[in-house]
Amino acid sequence: MEYTDPTTTGSTIPSSSSSIAPSLPTAVQRPCAACKILRRRCTDRCVLAPYFPPTEPFNFIIVHRVFGASNIIKSLQDLPESRRADAVSSMIYEANARMRDPVYGCAGAISQLHKQLCDLQTELAATQAELALVQCQQQQLNESVIFLDDSNSASAWEPHWN
Amino acid sequence: MEYTDPTTTGSTIPSSSSSIAPSLPTAVQRPCAACKILRRRCTDRCVLAPYFPPTEPFNFIIVHRVFGASNIIKSLQDLPESRRADAVSSMIYEANARMRDPVYGCAGAISQLHKQLCDLQTELAATQAELALVQCQQQQLNESVIFLDDSNSASAWEPHWN
Repeated sequence: MEYTDPTTTGSTIPSSSSSIAPSLPTAVQRPCAACKILRRRCTDRCVLAPYFPPTEPFNFIIVHRVFGASNIIKSLQDLPESRRADAVSSMIYEANARMRDPVYGCAGAISQLHKQLCDLQTELAATQAELALVQCQQQQLNESVIFLDDSNSASAWEPHWN
Repeated sequence: MEYTDPTTTGSTIPSSSSSIAPSLPTAVQRPCAACKILRRRCTDRCVLAPYFPPTEPFNFIIVHRVFGASNIIKSLQDLPESRRADAVSSMIYEANARMRDPVYGCAGAISQLHKQLCDLQTELAATQAELALVQCQQQQLNESVIFLDDSNSASAWEPHWN
């Protein structure tokens, strides 16, 4: 698969002509998991290296299989650096979901969650309705107790003329 | 981007040597949206054509941008034909989510749904606890009403000796 060269991605080469030549990317001793899998030279400017350390190759294998290396690099380049870690995490999550469920992927999980939400809302509405009914019955009972209690008190105090 | 040739994908070429030569894919008059965007010859064996009609190019543009054409084709080829339409629908859904939210994509929606579920479960538990309490109070009130009612009945029927 064709993709943007990670050795140059994320580099900030000055556009204006300058007497100071831009520094060239330096090859790193231990390539990141992405460059190792893609069999590329990994440099200190590799856009993937911060998110795919050599100790965790499985994450890159999965996202590469689902999104493709070029799409991952393009996505990261379009984001500020502060958001890239979250973007990679979400891509790993989505790719895992797609591997587990090749037909529905994350959309399947969303559909299930929507169903669970709908079921819970129905259960909550039923419980709220039952609570309202019981509260209404309790109110009526309270009134009965007051009435009966008053009747009892009155009969206890009323003079017995007979 | 490099991808598997859709003109040959999904074809069923007999593996055994036969006197009947396998029929060649026939070019179609109106290419599907995928082949049109990829500037490829669309044939009657195109694996993408059933899901990306020429009238709806936007869907292919989106999934191509997020997953890449080769990954989409590979995914479809790994599935039985009966599941491919659902797989394409879910990929379109996920790709749209990723375009709307380039950092979190579908994972963001899942996270929000989990939070809503958690909030609803808390509300349901609170409502159920309140219902249990009110039902307990109602039981005690019922017992009071029976007791007071019995007392009233007894005082109405008891002979007044005075």
